[in-house]
Amino acid sequence: MKKHITLSVPFFSILFLTMTLVEAQPKAPVSDATQACLSCHATATPGLMGDWERSRHAKVTPEEALKKGKLERRVSTDKVPGVLSKTVVGCAECHTLNSEKHKDAFEHNGYKVHTVVTPADCAVCHPTEDQQYAKNLMSHAYGNLTHNAVYADLMNSVNATPSFDKGKTSLLPSNPETDRDSCLYCHGTEVKVAGVTKRNTGMGEMEFPVLSGWPNQGVGRINPDGSKGSCAACHARHQFSIEVARKPYTCSQCHKGPDVPAFGVYEVSKHGNIYSSLGKEWDFNAVPWKIGKDLTAPTCATCHVSLTVSAESGEVIAERTHQMGDRIAWRIMGLIYAHPHPGSPDTTSIKNKAGLPLPTELTGEPVSSQLIDAKEQEKRNAALQNVCLSCHSEPWVKGHFARFENTIKTTNAATLTATKILLDAWQKGAAQGLAQKDSVFNEAIEKKWVEQWLFYANSTRYASAMSGADYGVFAHGRWYLNKNIQEMADWLEFKLQQKPATKK
Amino acid sequence: MKKHITLSVPFFSILFLTMTLVEAQPKAPVSDATQACLSCHATATPGLMGDWERSRHAKVTPEEALKKGKLERRVSTDKVPGVLSKTVVGCAECHTLNSEKHKDAFEHNGYKVHTVVTPADCAVCHPTEDQQYAKNLMSHAYGNLTHNAVYADLMNSVNATPSFDKGKTSLLPSNPETDRDSCLYCHGTEVKVAGVTKRNTGMGEMEFPVLSGWPNQGVGRINPDGSKGSCAACHARHQFSIEVARKPYTCSQCHKGPDVPAFGVYEVSKHGNIYSSLGKEWDFNAVPWKIGKDLTAPTCATCHVSLTVSAESGEVIAERTHQMGDRIAWRIMGLIYAHPHPGSPDTTSIKNKAGLPLPTELTGEPVSSQLIDAKEQEKRNAALQNVCLSCHSEPWVKGHFARFENTIKTTNAATLTATKILLDAWQKGAAQGLAQKDSVFNEAIEKKWVEQWLFYANSTRYASAMSGADYGVFAHGRWYLNKNIQEMADWLEFKLQQKPATKK
Amino acid sequence: MKKHITLSVPFFSILFLTMTLVEAQPKAPVSDATQACLSCHATATPGLMGDWERSRHAKVTPEEALKKGKLERRVSTDKVPGVLSKTVVGCAECHTLNSEKHKDAFEHNGYKVHTVVTPADCAVCHPTEDQQYAKNLMSHAYGNLTHNAVYADLMNSVNATPSFDKGKTSLLPSNPETDRDSCLYCHGTEVKVAGVTKRNTGMGEMEFPVLSGWPNQGVGRINPDGSKGSCAACHARHQFSIEVARKPYTCSQCHKGPDVPAFGVYEVSKHGNIYSSLGKEWDFNAVPWKIGKDLTAPTCATCHVSLTVSAESGEVIAERTHQMGDRIAWRIMGLIYAHPHPGSPDTTSIKNKAGLPLPTELTGEPVSSQLIDAKEQEKRNAALQNVCLSCHSEPWVKGHFARFENTIKTTNAATLTATKILLDAWQKGAAQGLAQKDSVFNEAIEKKWVEQWLFYANSTRYASAMSGADYGVFAHGRWYLNKNIQEMADWLEFKLQQKPATKK
Repeated sequence: MKKHITLSVPFFSILFLTMTLVEAQPKAPVSDATQACLSCHATATPGLMGDWERSRHAKVTPEEALKKGKLERRVSTDKVPGVLSKTVVGCAECHTLNSEKHKDAFEHNGYKVHTVVTPADCAVCHPTEDQQYAKNLMSHAYGNLTHNAVYADLMNSVNATPSFDKGKTSLLPSNPETDRDSCLYCHGTEVKVAGVTKRNTGMGEMEFPVLSGWPNQGVGRINPDGSKGSCAACHARHQFSIEVARKPYTCSQCHKGPDVPAFGVYEVSKHGNIYSSLGKEWDFNAVPWKIGKDLTAPTCATCHVSLTVSAESGEVIAERTHQMGDRIAWRIMGLIYAHPHPGSPDTTSIKNKAGLPLPTELTGEPVSSQLIDAKEQEKRNAALQNVCLSCHSEPWVKGHFARFENTIKTTNAATLTATKILLDAWQKGAAQGLAQKDSVFNEAIEKKWVEQWLFYANSTRYASAMSGADYGVFAHGRWYLNKNIQEMADWLEFKLQQKPATKK
Repeated sequence: MKKHITLSVPFFSILFLTMTLVEAQPKAPVSDATQACLSCHATATPGLMGDWERSRHAKVTPEEALKKGKLERRVSTDKVPGVLSKTVVGCAECHTLNSEKHKDAFEHNGYKVHTVVTPADCAVCHPTEDQQYAKNLMSHAYGNLTHNAVYADLMNSVNATPSFDKGKTSLLPSNPETDRDSCLYCHGTEVKVAGVTKRNTGMGEMEFPVLSGWPNQGVGRINPDGSKGSCAACHARHQFSIEVARKPYTCSQCHKGPDVPAFGVYEVSKHGNIYSSLGKEWDFNAVPWKIGKDLTAPTCATCHVSLTVSAESGEVIAERTHQMGDRIAWRIMGLIYAHPHPGSPDTTSIKNKAGLPLPTELTGEPVSSQLIDAKEQEKRNAALQNVCLSCHSEPWVKGHFARFENTIKTTNAATLTATKILLDAWQKGAAQGLAQKDSVFNEAIEKKWVEQWLFYANSTRYASAMSGADYGVFAHGRWYLNKNIQEMADWLEFKLQQKPATKK
Repeated sequence: MKKHITLSVPFFSILFLTMTLVEAQPKAPVSDATQACLSCHATATPGLMGDWERSRHAKVTPEEALKKGKLERRVSTDKVPGVLSKTVVGCAECHTLNSEKHKDAFEHNGYKVHTVVTPADCAVCHPTEDQQYAKNLMSHAYGNLTHNAVYADLMNSVNATPSFDKGKTSLLPSNPETDRDSCLYCHGTEVKVAGVTKRNTGMGEMEFPVLSGWPNQGVGRINPDGSKGSCAACHARHQFSIEVARKPYTCSQCHKGPDVPAFGVYEVSKHGNIYSSLGKEWDFNAVPWKIGKDLTAPTCATCHVSLTVSAESGEVIAERTHQMGDRIAWRIMGLIYAHPHPGSPDTTSIKNKAGLPLPTELTGEPVSSQLIDAKEQEKRNAALQNVCLSCHSEPWVKGHFARFENTIKTTNAATLTATKILLDAWQKGAAQGLAQKDSVFNEAIEKKWVEQWLFYANSTRYASAMSGADYGVFAHGRWYLNKNIQEMADWLEFKLQQKPATKK
């Protein structure tokens, strides 16, 4: 039993003392350059400053970071350049790095500074993450969307402004700012230097570059130094907290809408329930992440990104990866049919037999030469399932994945049925499609066809993959797969009755 | 005033010492059988293990649990079998219990083990909860859905794969895995032993049963021991935390979609706001749950399940119940019209005058003989309102419930209007219904009719019942009740103009 | 380095001691009148009591509150009436205040008590907040909705009960309880004394007023003392916690649905992500709110309401305002087109050239004489942007706002296109509109027109304003703006083909 010895020292005085002692520890060294930044920006941007002060970057020098053991290390380089190694990672360390490559670099108070810190900058200390991320579909999200004629047409059908004149609808072209405010917000913009401007500041008049496509922190941003992506998409500036990246709200920034409802599904899953109920007691900052100790149910990062080890044995359960596809066998979103993941992160060269830049035919058959094969799928499934097996038995896991693959089949079948109705509509002249060289996304029945796969089939698959069934039935799932088919068939019937045969 | 005496002992060293002392307490005794499980599974399934270690089951023996006072007790039996009473509730205690009744029991490392722990197993220590739950509609959720011809048809209309051929749509039958991944995920599957299989394990080759319908933790699961339900639906394995069950995320697993948007409504209610803002300071583990001290606004469990007492007087406000209907007078979801709760949890024997297995006529009149009467409704309302009165005055509560009953009437009226349009469509041959022995859920207008009650009337009623008005207006509520009527009427008008009269 | 001195005093005994000392501090003085209330209500309503006990009102007297420095003060009066100044703010202090003005005041156990505490009561200590709030559109939310013929018609189209007879739909008038359960839940009801009633209580039979329109805590509630609004809409009774008001869940009570999805957008924004991930470590009770210390990303209140200062310099970043429009240049919700904010919070006198009570023409041109001018817009933008600049550079902020103004233009254009289709439908007799003196909200195409602006244009604008792009593309945004146009055009085409020309 515990012995209770009463002592006339209030708790807070001890806490106070402790804090004083901690405060008294030598402060982490800050470079002169960063000190110069802080001399103005601490006052000019107090929120940014307070955020950075809480960051690990503000507290640990790369030299100290390198002393950690292999599993505990958060830097993946073996050697940080000397000039960077003995001070904490402050403003100047990132914003003056590689400035010769940065078209956005400018003279600022005696330093060559750039606004847009890029994966290539972060790679000085985190090269493995940078290399992995470059093989991630996300780093190519800008080009994969805008340099693919079909996707570009879909994007236009979303962002263009509608018009109505003499009983006919048409689309006025989208403007660049709309694209950046819409699809490119997540996919990433192209950030370019568009000129220079002068501004009065606390330091007098100063000259700054004018950036187009700014602000943006999309996953596939095209940066002024030629690199792709933005680490800040997930590692929110300027705290760059691993806790933030590991919590599901980060993924929800881009993965909540009905086209890719990962977060909506997670919320109603058992995993999401446990996280929401008990996650407050977990350690989201531990590296490696010890399953059974630091956490007892997964977040997005646990399954798809993080280095996890067993709390009991210390054995590695999953290696850290920033090429998220490493543990994903199927692409279940964004395309007309679910299919094996593409082999290359740059999907612009994929073409199906019909010559369309799609990984499947319009009728669903995969363009296998461009996609990973069954063996690679098995490898990725094994890597993912190894995480599941931390808590679940093999029959549980196998049963779960068998159901998921069944769902891929049935949702693809439901999409094929929608496609058949659309093809019938095109063939009978009720709508204008590929043969007429018209957009395949601009008429009402085409939009219903898009919803069949982009919303309802995707949502059903996510609900299945992540065990959030409530989402996949009536929220945006199976109910609509069948309802939509009836409405497409009725639309076609009504349209074919119009006389004379209508044209859009 | 507090005296501040400075002491040269850092806080953390004291904390460390305290933790050491706590560690030094004699560990709760673990049975030899459970010790044997742990010898492999601690390493094999570290997540599961870490979860269980945090559980009350891992820390308290049934003998100790029985020593608590009546209101503090978490076990409802008066006597736990001797063999179980002096060790904590570990792996073996549950997974080898009643194994003679378990068709899924198998020889495993010298023990007869079963995978699927059931309410009948939990009933050894928690018999009252088991008995109450057996009278809960939820424990019959599997049979009530699959053994009712109308609901089974609705389920098929959701899960079956659509097909399109020669201008006609049809449904290919659903496969069992789809049902299990969809409706039965929450309602519960039938778990059966479908064979045996051998698998290589760390212990060499071992034989395991193959279970069909697995995994599942639905509320009405049919278990291999013949029992119904899964306590893990709400008491997530293997921590079985009362905190999890009391937090609203647990209910949201099955009650968030537009068919039963309890969680969506709660989120925008004042109760939900206060919980989300201040719940972090509440005690979700206290038994009994002291209103005014442990919590200051209700979660789902507070109103519908938990034993609550007054923080001031200790008086019981509501008795614990696992027959959730005990405090619910109306069934406002899942059926065509809101109506008094059914008298029996098994609803398969209900029939209306037209011979349909429904608790109301198609035109809304309740099948009163099968439903609770006004006196029982009053009793249940009184039990629920006693919780409300902990914080609200009687006029507030009466005013709230008067509005709710008004909403039941107006939403039922809006559903009746939709039904009249549907009956008109059937009668005029625009759609095929009961008279034609066709499914009442497969045509577009029928699906709109379903949405009128299953989505919009239900959502409006939940918004009213739980004061989350924002959800019941434009999110999925009243706006759509009226919009849907116009669209149904237009569909009928368009369809009747088709020539020749179309058939599905 | 820290020295570790081991000490044989467990941590909890010290904590216990500390708590005892804190308990021993003299309790804040409670008035005799409040003591009398507590003597029954502590037992009768323990939840309410526990909530109040946690409030600042229960711990600090107005006299003490007045001693705080200008920025720290939470009361805005300079002098609290003597009788109130030396006791804490308890039951009697609010519920017996100004009782001569309260039509709901009644004799209760020797005191003249009123149920409905109003902004005029709160104004005794918080007059500035009351004055500002009176200039806020929200305080006029009841009249602005019900005394505007167009909005009243929209409200009726939502709340009225649909009917179907002889192939025709119509609307049965809404009843008052439905309006109060729907739109008026947030807008506020008119609370009136409708009679008196007797009730048995623990104190024997007592007489109470009967209130109509009760319960309600809507932002524009018409109170029995003639005042407007309810502070409890945001400052939830009876803790009145500034933490609750500053957290986004409070705003979500009324601002989550697709008509005004501020919370839905915030959730997927970077700001919302950081709040959800790290907000647990912030101080939501600090006054003033120090950016960079108490918080590192904004909630709704940070941008629109709170007094914020720089953590570094202490400089004021934004003054506290309860006239939320102070930092909002555009009204982007609730009306057909986004437009500059109205000049007066009472919008019932606004009329466009066509004589409709709307701030724009049906074709979008603003009724400039009733709206704030460009200079006032600039002032409000500057006030809001000063908050942004705490963390973001000027190019970031300017770039963001340029995109937002672009979105206002494109969404207004998409609404105009929908309006053109509707005008065409009215003109060709496919629907009955203004010229026919028919409701403009009751036919299917009219409802689609409403969704174009009330749901999709609004949602797109919120997504743009608050950087939650995921919400504004496929959730309720741009995708639907264009889809809806196609469906409106098709509906018109189908309707015009019906013979004979149909009438609703």
